[in-house]
Amino acid sequence: MTNPSSPPPSEEQTRPEETTETAYVVDDDYVRRISELLEAGRTGEVERIIALLHSADLADLLERLHPEDRATVVGIIRPLLRLDGEVLTYLNEDVRAEIFKQLTPQEIAAALAGLDSDDALTLIEDLEEDEREEILAALPVRRRLLVEEGLTFPEYSAGRLMQREYIAVPMFWTVGKTIDYLRAADDLPDDFFLIFTVDPRHRPVGSVPLSRILRSRRSVKIADLVQDEIRPIHATTDQEEVAYMFRQYGLVSAPVVDDAGRLIGVITIDDVVDVIDEEAEDDLFKLGGISEDDLYRAVLDTSRSRLPWLAINMVTAIVAASVVALFESTIASVVALAVLMPIVAGMGGNAGTQALTVAVRAIAMRELSSSNAWRVLSKELLVGIVNGSLLAAAAALIAGLWFGDPTIGLVIGAAMIINIGLASFFGALVPLGLRKIGVDPAVASAVFLTTLTDTIGFFALLGLATWILL
Amino acid sequence: MTNPSSPPPSEEQTRPEETTETAYVVDDDYVRRISELLEAGRTGEVERIIALLHSADLADLLERLHPEDRATVVGIIRPLLRLDGEVLTYLNEDVRAEIFKQLTPQEIAAALAGLDSDDALTLIEDLEEDEREEILAALPVRRRLLVEEGLTFPEYSAGRLMQREYIAVPMFWTVGKTIDYLRAADDLPDDFFLIFTVDPRHRPVGSVPLSRILRSRRSVKIADLVQDEIRPIHATTDQEEVAYMFRQYGLVSAPVVDDAGRLIGVITIDDVVDVIDEEAEDDLFKLGGISEDDLYRAVLDTSRSRLPWLAINMVTAIVAASVVALFESTIASVVALAVLMPIVAGMGGNAGTQALTVAVRAIAMRELSSSNAWRVLSKELLVGIVNGSLLAAAAALIAGLWFGDPTIGLVIGAAMIINIGLASFFGALVPLGLRKIGVDPAVASAVFLTTLTDTIGFFALLGLATWILL
Repeated sequence: MTNPSSPPPSEEQTRPEETTETAYVVDDDYVRRISELLEAGRTGEVERIIALLHSADLADLLERLHPEDRATVVGIIRPLLRLDGEVLTYLNEDVRAEIFKQLTPQEIAAALAGLDSDDALTLIEDLEEDEREEILAALPVRRRLLVEEGLTFPEYSAGRLMQREYIAVPMFWTVGKTIDYLRAADDLPDDFFLIFTVDPRHRPVGSVPLSRILRSRRSVKIADLVQDEIRPIHATTDQEEVAYMFRQYGLVSAPVVDDAGRLIGVITIDDVVDVIDEEAEDDLFKLGGISEDDLYRAVLDTSRSRLPWLAINMVTAIVAASVVALFESTIASVVALAVLMPIVAGMGGNAGTQALTVAVRAIAMRELSSSNAWRVLSKELLVGIVNGSLLAAAAALIAGLWFGDPTIGLVIGAAMIINIGLASFFGALVPLGLRKIGVDPAVASAVFLTTLTDTIGFFALLGLATWILL
Repeated sequence: MTNPSSPPPSEEQTRPEETTETAYVVDDDYVRRISELLEAGRTGEVERIIALLHSADLADLLERLHPEDRATVVGIIRPLLRLDGEVLTYLNEDVRAEIFKQLTPQEIAAALAGLDSDDALTLIEDLEEDEREEILAALPVRRRLLVEEGLTFPEYSAGRLMQREYIAVPMFWTVGKTIDYLRAADDLPDDFFLIFTVDPRHRPVGSVPLSRILRSRRSVKIADLVQDEIRPIHATTDQEEVAYMFRQYGLVSAPVVDDAGRLIGVITIDDVVDVIDEEAEDDLFKLGGISEDDLYRAVLDTSRSRLPWLAINMVTAIVAASVVALFESTIASVVALAVLMPIVAGMGGNAGTQALTVAVRAIAMRELSSSNAWRVLSKELLVGIVNGSLLAAAAALIAGLWFGDPTIGLVIGAAMIINIGLASFFGALVPLGLRKIGVDPAVASAVFLTTLTDTIGFFALLGLATWILL
């Protein structure tokens, strides 16, 4: 079913470079060139060059530049910002906050005025109360009301994601009447994928992809084009659910309803793409012990946001270490154990992390929950025992030869089977348990798990050693 | 700019439950109910219940069920599959592979026949050569040619992602002529967001959102509605680039071109959502030491896929342990060091992982590269020194009291500043270095880093101890 009017192949020079080139406009050379021009004080040239940039690329440039240069460039694009605030929507929030400091509330308001209501909302929702008020006060009344209304919805809810601009028509309209309405109306969103049909109480009852309208004769009833059942999203639904529904059902656009089920806005897939990105980044960061992206943060802010996690880890590390303290006398007589300790503990940590990663992702994707938990847990235990045994054999051999004592090999081997076996099991159990008690599995799992694997590892190795070697 | 015909608010009972409820159709209870019915052999009821499911939910159910039950359900939906293979597109590939074993090539071909070319392609690209041939042979000729052509593009390329069905019209057409063409044509994609304009050589020169066509009079020239410059994607472009471009420029749909720059297909944002998901999952898994999602794998397959990483880790663990071996005599005389070793090494690992996580994500998001590398590296070093000093102070105090010896406190404190300071620095340097030599930063960073932090930690602690305490 390819396009019918495909022309015959023609011999022509290829142009992959050209197309791949378009992928990164703001590459390292570009950034360097700009910084050099700025150092040379040739702002006029910089202005001419960046005038050609897409807002998203301009945002990248601002992020990449050294803070001083960034301030200079913001100075250059000041007048441009008043006309089009789109670039602000593409900025990392730390960089944006820094740039906002440089601008007056009036300038920011001017920049917001041209944006879709949902973008405007995103830009100011993180601001300080008073700063936000100043900007809102400077906004056109109608726009201000929309944004303020948006702020009444909980953070990370569908109400914050949705766009207030949408098209809704009654079921009984015809294609012709709809087209005439669209041609006549002047206050419509720039681009939209589908229109909603509503009942007399303005509750969404169906949706019609524009393509179906375009392909039908004017006399056709909208009711006959309506797409299978729609899935209204309540304004207070968490954005994670929203992303899930879009993914699950391959939606491009979904109606948002209020408590009475009335259509109040629309969420489009491009908003959801950002959410999916955020959620994935979130899990990645939490597993890595990062509260949020701090790439553009100053040293002290970064230290502050990372310290709590490290402090918790130190407490747990001391707990594990105190197990070692129980066996000081054993270590004193068989120092080789001090050499083998990190191997046993570390391998348990790695095996556990593997199981943990799969479990955390599966929970986030709603593929792992109580209905299949036991199947997964028992599997992980077996996987741990299998790999544990294989690695234990190798470790036993190496340690035996290293310290010229087969029983030391025996001890580390046995310890590794125990630790790696249990590590995989706990790797899946910890996140499941945390979820059960209402804690985000991604955020705390790693600490608990490493404490467990260290403790079990030390206990197994040193305990067995005390029992067998002494 | 909300919808003009908004009706007055009406008092009505709220219905959030209803809307949230729609979010998970296949929850634990649902799965349990089905399994129970299956055990009771009441397949007729099961058939009636699952007949109501959306394909995506049916796929979830199949994934969640115990393999035996799954086989039974596949048996039940067999006839349904011939008519609509959509459910197959939603399945995890391991589960799909298992289900394919149960179906005949003819049945699979029948299921594929109704799908879009890109979906059909995804379903068979991972199959064994011969298995794939059998299915292709059973496909309708025209469909088979499209799929076979798709297979000629490299894996994970735009050519594999794209849909062959698209709409292209010449620049000089009017809105009226275009609408007439769309109404008359019978071999168009079901739903589409925009149409492309092409030059006489069939190269894409612009795109027009359907909403603009709908809102324009028949006499308007398509050329006047064309959207700002389009970004053709070459068929061999990697899907990661494709996802980047969609994200960067907020595209909903982009033209795919061949070497001669001719339009050969279109990629829509819903395909890209899956790619974004995959890429994010990929980084998460690699950092966790997982080659791919193995939730649905059998024990031995899972063990096999996880073992290599663990083996590498054991080698590196032994390298780090051998550092400890250098100081056996020191440990023999100050056993407390064996207790403190894991604390120093572990904290370095955690601090390093924080820096590593931010760096890997930033590299993937194209926010970190040589142009800002040094700024980030020097910042990480400072962050490490700041947090290292704070934690070192605490550790020194605790260790000093614990072992009643201030010099031991001094030693661990100094060791922690050194290790945490360097750990943060290397946490950012390792992924940057791997990328420079063309290795995926996500996949190998963790091994290198932990080896480094362990080695440095042991060396610092035991070295200082030997120097100061003995």
